[in-house]
Amino acid sequence: MQHWSSVVAEWGQAARAAARCLALADTDQKNAWLTRAKERLDAGAERLLSANAADVADAQTAGLAPALIDRLRLTPARLAALSQGLLEIRALPDPIGQVIEGSRRPGGLEIRKVRVPVGVLLFIYESRPGVTVDAAALAMKSGNAILLRGGKEARRSNAELQTHLAAALADVGLPAAAIQQVTDPDRQLLTALLHAGDWIDLCIPRGGEGLIRAVAAEAAMPVLKHYRGNCHLYVDAAADLEMARRLLYNGKCQRPGTCNATESLLVHAAVAERFLPVALAELQTHGVEIRGCPTTCRLFPPARPAQDADFAAEFLDLILSVRVVPDLEAALDHVARFGSGHTEAIVTDHGPTAARFLREVDAAAVLVNASTRLHDGSVFGLGAEIGISTDKFHARGPCGLVELTTYKYHVLGSGHVRH
Amino acid sequence: MQHWSSVVAEWGQAARAAARCLALADTDQKNAWLTRAKERLDAGAERLLSANAADVADAQTAGLAPALIDRLRLTPARLAALSQGLLEIRALPDPIGQVIEGSRRPGGLEIRKVRVPVGVLLFIYESRPGVTVDAAALAMKSGNAILLRGGKEARRSNAELQTHLAAALADVGLPAAAIQQVTDPDRQLLTALLHAGDWIDLCIPRGGEGLIRAVAAEAAMPVLKHYRGNCHLYVDAAADLEMARRLLYNGKCQRPGTCNATESLLVHAAVAERFLPVALAELQTHGVEIRGCPTTCRLFPPARPAQDADFAAEFLDLILSVRVVPDLEAALDHVARFGSGHTEAIVTDHGPTAARFLREVDAAAVLVNASTRLHDGSVFGLGAEIGISTDKFHARGPCGLVELTTYKYHVLGSGHVRH
Repeated sequence: MQHWSSVVAEWGQAARAAARCLALADTDQKNAWLTRAKERLDAGAERLLSANAADVADAQTAGLAPALIDRLRLTPARLAALSQGLLEIRALPDPIGQVIEGSRRPGGLEIRKVRVPVGVLLFIYESRPGVTVDAAALAMKSGNAILLRGGKEARRSNAELQTHLAAALADVGLPAAAIQQVTDPDRQLLTALLHAGDWIDLCIPRGGEGLIRAVAAEAAMPVLKHYRGNCHLYVDAAADLEMARRLLYNGKCQRPGTCNATESLLVHAAVAERFLPVALAELQTHGVEIRGCPTTCRLFPPARPAQDADFAAEFLDLILSVRVVPDLEAALDHVARFGSGHTEAIVTDHGPTAARFLREVDAAAVLVNASTRLHDGSVFGLGAEIGISTDKFHARGPCGLVELTTYKYHVLGSGHVRH
Repeated sequence: MQHWSSVVAEWGQAARAAARCLALADTDQKNAWLTRAKERLDAGAERLLSANAADVADAQTAGLAPALIDRLRLTPARLAALSQGLLEIRALPDPIGQVIEGSRRPGGLEIRKVRVPVGVLLFIYESRPGVTVDAAALAMKSGNAILLRGGKEARRSNAELQTHLAAALADVGLPAAAIQQVTDPDRQLLTALLHAGDWIDLCIPRGGEGLIRAVAAEAAMPVLKHYRGNCHLYVDAAADLEMARRLLYNGKCQRPGTCNATESLLVHAAVAERFLPVALAELQTHGVEIRGCPTTCRLFPPARPAQDADFAAEFLDLILSVRVVPDLEAALDHVARFGSGHTEAIVTDHGPTAARFLREVDAAAVLVNASTRLHDGSVFGLGAEIGISTDKFHARGPCGLVELTTYKYHVLGSGHVRH
């Protein structure tokens, strides 16, 4: 522990010095890094793919799950998308230096609230090596130094990526410590990192709920958390049922492993009989397992009875929990009880019902007549995102460049004193 | 511990239900509460003063420090100011429901980022009973339920205040659990409260650095922290020295016990000889003790030699640390090393130097040609403040109504799905 603390202090001190420099880097210099990083990744594609192939081979030998191996794998197409992503981040506006608001106070004092970088980020993630590049790029453009703690299984891929990201830093005169990979042979390093509140301003863990809770419990610095997406679609009495069917199918089946997939369906009793048998039969033909309340099971006999645990679950799979509710009030209560504060949607053509749902549901995103899958940084116009926050602080929902910033006040006087 | 957890869960559940209701309360209802609370406090002044007199008598018997007893004491004038403060908060714009930004995305999806309350606040404070009223009023206007954990020494005053605040809730039809006082006979209750992350969204401790660090280390929820204000005034080579003298005197002497008082003076070597003897002599006649670097001690012999601990200290007293620096770079390095990220000021007429100081100093507020004492919510136009945050998240600097809010996204579609 002692040993790791001093290693972390060394990294942290270097990162903090780099952050001071990055905070002052202008947009041209940061964009030049994005350009050079893309060029270097493109030129190094062959070596990257072979380093990755070695990681994949090891993972296969170690018997890792096929889904994990798929996430680990780089292909020429994935590499091209990654490199293209750098240009997309280059095209985004630089948030740093933006004057968020300002005023001239009585007496003539000028107040400006100005956007500044956070400082040093610690990014903890798992097997996907592409995330290394995305996270580094978002950090550089937002003027933050970053410590990248990737998964052991991707260590060769990440080391190879790091040589290119670091070379691009040198190309444009940014400090080497702006992007550091912190790989650890044991969990003690992670613990030491999480205790380094003096050096690290914000921790962003990406992974399962267990990892995130463990990080949050240990961390001495603020943590941007994404716990769970238990997302509901509520089909109101005044819903366009054909639209509801499409939103349900899209929310559940378009990419069931994502945090904004629809996990639970609530249906107003007045339309349950018309809606459920057709809509659920369609899902079933696409392999979705239905776990329903007693009314659901009666209207759609292939459904299995749902337990409370099913209503609380984030399945991340082709499973859907279903409950028939007597009214909007009951739907709101169900969402308040079981929802995870991530994404909640209503299908209704009745304006006052939509307005009430929007006001009363406490979630990062509340949607009317739209698929839960649309809760996403690129859909919302934020550009690339580093995650979706289920916290209320400091950012909520999709976290892009702006969410990697904070602000400070500039105050301009001419000898002003306090009376 | 077990016992307190269940008590806290009961309070927390009630507070959460109240928060759901408060989030939907409209401005008129919240303002009506502020009006009624003022009327009830005014009508109950006599009983309030006698409850407070009993607290003060106990504190005197217990031998509490005179400064603490002064903070504890209510007078007719202080009570009138408190009651007037409610009308000032009433006059502030309601932040809830404000559309922070919005856009129509390609494809027609409408995105709105809307300001909403945080939920349930836990406010931990010490002897000043007026804070009970301020904190409750800021919470109500921003639509948050609040748990107030005041000091034991103010328990009679706070209990009497609570009867009026609660009666005003009943007057306007807001739930009683919107404002709850949580007084504890022992520290175990505080621990249980800090573990209640399921019920409490944000903790705001107000008090000494030790209390705040203890709370932050224990808390399962985000904590809005105010650690220390070690605020510097840097007198540049291009400073108007007469202005510098006035800013120094105001920053150090106008109210030395506050977090934004000037604790440390940095002076460019080129003006040290002209500035220091006069400016420090003036402070000395006002009872300020000077702790200086060797050059300072040479130029102003009454100064005592300063240690690093003096440069790091928040004196909150008539003491000033002084260092002569060779250039702006050295001043920036000193501030980066010893500053607390609270308030930093420069005196200079040289535009590029001011611009560089504004950009490079990492603090909640950076001032040019203005007293550090001006870093304040009312000066900045935020209205009443619940504290000044030395954190970078979720709010930085003065925390008023807006800083007691978060946001959610409203997304309006017409059958939009993810492709």
